[in-house]
Amino acid sequence: MNRVDRVIEKLNERGLSQLLVTDPRSIFYLTGVSVEPGERFFALLVKTDGDMTLFANRLFALPRDVGIETVWLSDTDIVSDAVSGRIDAASDLGADKTTAARFLIPIQEKMAGGRTVLASDCVDWVRAVKDGDELEKMREASRINDTVMGETAAYIRAGATEKEIADYLVSRYAHYGCEGVSFEPIVSFGANAADPHHMPDGTVIGEGDCAVIDIGCRKNGYCSDMTRTFFFGKAEPEYSAVYGLVREANERAEAIVRPGVRLCDIDAAARDHIAAAGYGEYFTHRLGHFIGLEVHEYGDVSAAFERPVEPGMCFSIEPGIYLPGKLGVRIEDLVTVTERGCEVLNGFSKDLRVL
Amino acid sequence: MNRVDRVIEKLNERGLSQLLVTDPRSIFYLTGVSVEPGERFFALLVKTDGDMTLFANRLFALPRDVGIETVWLSDTDIVSDAVSGRIDAASDLGADKTTAARFLIPIQEKMAGGRTVLASDCVDWVRAVKDGDELEKMREASRINDTVMGETAAYIRAGATEKEIADYLVSRYAHYGCEGVSFEPIVSFGANAADPHHMPDGTVIGEGDCAVIDIGCRKNGYCSDMTRTFFFGKAEPEYSAVYGLVREANERAEAIVRPGVRLCDIDAAARDHIAAAGYGEYFTHRLGHFIGLEVHEYGDVSAAFERPVEPGMCFSIEPGIYLPGKLGVRIEDLVTVTERGCEVLNGFSKDLRVL
Repeated sequence: MNRVDRVIEKLNERGLSQLLVTDPRSIFYLTGVSVEPGERFFALLVKTDGDMTLFANRLFALPRDVGIETVWLSDTDIVSDAVSGRIDAASDLGADKTTAARFLIPIQEKMAGGRTVLASDCVDWVRAVKDGDELEKMREASRINDTVMGETAAYIRAGATEKEIADYLVSRYAHYGCEGVSFEPIVSFGANAADPHHMPDGTVIGEGDCAVIDIGCRKNGYCSDMTRTFFFGKAEPEYSAVYGLVREANERAEAIVRPGVRLCDIDAAARDHIAAAGYGEYFTHRLGHFIGLEVHEYGDVSAAFERPVEPGMCFSIEPGIYLPGKLGVRIEDLVTVTERGCEVLNGFSKDLRVL
Repeated sequence: MNRVDRVIEKLNERGLSQLLVTDPRSIFYLTGVSVEPGERFFALLVKTDGDMTLFANRLFALPRDVGIETVWLSDTDIVSDAVSGRIDAASDLGADKTTAARFLIPIQEKMAGGRTVLASDCVDWVRAVKDGDELEKMREASRINDTVMGETAAYIRAGATEKEIADYLVSRYAHYGCEGVSFEPIVSFGANAADPHHMPDGTVIGEGDCAVIDIGCRKNGYCSDMTRTFFFGKAEPEYSAVYGLVREANERAEAIVRPGVRLCDIDAAARDHIAAAGYGEYFTHRLGHFIGLEVHEYGDVSAAFERPVEPGMCFSIEPGIYLPGKLGVRIEDLVTVTERGCEVLNGFSKDLRVL
């Protein structure tokens, strides 16, 4: 079944006859039309009878015939008029998660009996299940990430700063023909790593420091994302113990992934193990996120998501422990659900490594 | 009057008692708290009694005391519950333009009598009027832009590609201590320039080509944005004539800017001049956009905006003519409205220049 048909199937299940898709990546996923709209309106109206209408600004760098019926807008057009002229205002309208209030509220004010309903799951859960071509691209992006992780570990030496390491690894992605990074690389030494989102700065690595390397590239449009944690010179006994615990949490979670297992239970497999060892309060984030055309796609591996996983879904498994003033340890792989379990897209070793 | 008080004044004028601000730049503008929230919820609730509440995720790199009462959220918390616990659900709630449907619709479903009203103009028109400190930063960013435009023009020579010129000018911004570009630079040669948003590629400049250079930097948080169009080797008579027309349109618009003049009339001053010469259909975009902490802030210089301008407002004046297959010409300055007219923030010459 093609992608649009899968969206229509989900709309029918929800009892909706129309969905306004505004996430540019979702529009690309469904139509192949790629635009960065900035603050301008860009949307795809999908109706369950198969009718599709694209709304695009004349200033977008697009051919005049994109293969879909298109409403061309100028900067002075009223977006809500254009949309309300195409929707069935008496029926409920599914709205995509990203639809901005500046468009949504005026559209809501022109509904005539229908309501707007948050329904991006009708496209997001379709995007979440990758097809064979997408999986091959996900594997390729992660293969490059494995290679660059190895080169990065080899590049860390006395005197190296976080920023220098980050710049180096970005240049390696370019060498391998990537379109770029899938997110700004995280390279955190020592106590900096206790902040999961610390940005690389001039900090120099010191004896006994951890080095959290959380990196990803974009290749053929698809994203990779992996974290490894190394130690420099030596690993204190407490730090080794924390490392072992995080690794076990990572592997326990990966071990239970198979069709039908709920996302919240995968999260719990890692979280309960860390909590049982007394470090629960230091694992401060969700276990993972979905990934594909974007590094963070809709869907979390967390207590908030009770959905069972399906073959083809791709997400991260990234437990971490953050001890303020001391260190952070995070070990992250991407996995894809298979018929019987999961395939780990990253091959880079998780053995404790002292550089 | 401080920034928050000016927002409260506008809310009172609109008859609203509460506004949920979600644009991260607006939150920074009002509080000094800077976060890139990604897909996570980040908002500032402003009430007309002066009460403010910040909603932030525990994972944001923020101190625990940011000087404003803060509701700390985890990834598993229900955002709409947190918000509805703080708003007056029986009164209308002003919504910011950027509020995403994934947050807005669940909040709407928890309103108890109040409606959500699009009210970002209550903060956007405050941001639009820059104070003295902001104007000094705007001038500084444009001074650097003037310098880099001169260096860029000097760098264009036979064999140069668009990409090479773009890379060079980005390095110059770094040299002058900028945080980065305010948008991806546009360097378009010859017929490429007929697309106002063409991205730099391997195109080599040719004899008689136009070179549209549309560039800006971010310095001390504030953005510059200027376009100049040069010719390489020679300028065909038709091209010179088009250049002269665009320059006149730019100068006619700048000449009428003073407090009380409507944005649509500034647009018309340029557009009518181009249309009278028979090129109206080739001027395909608004005349300008507001600018400050972001390169495109709320507010257009276009037929869609009938608001009179006020001292301190900053926007671009950028007429253009795009002839498919031939060339594009755009001449853009930033201006700020003064008590009696306007100050043009760019000093770079608009005389026709053959490189």
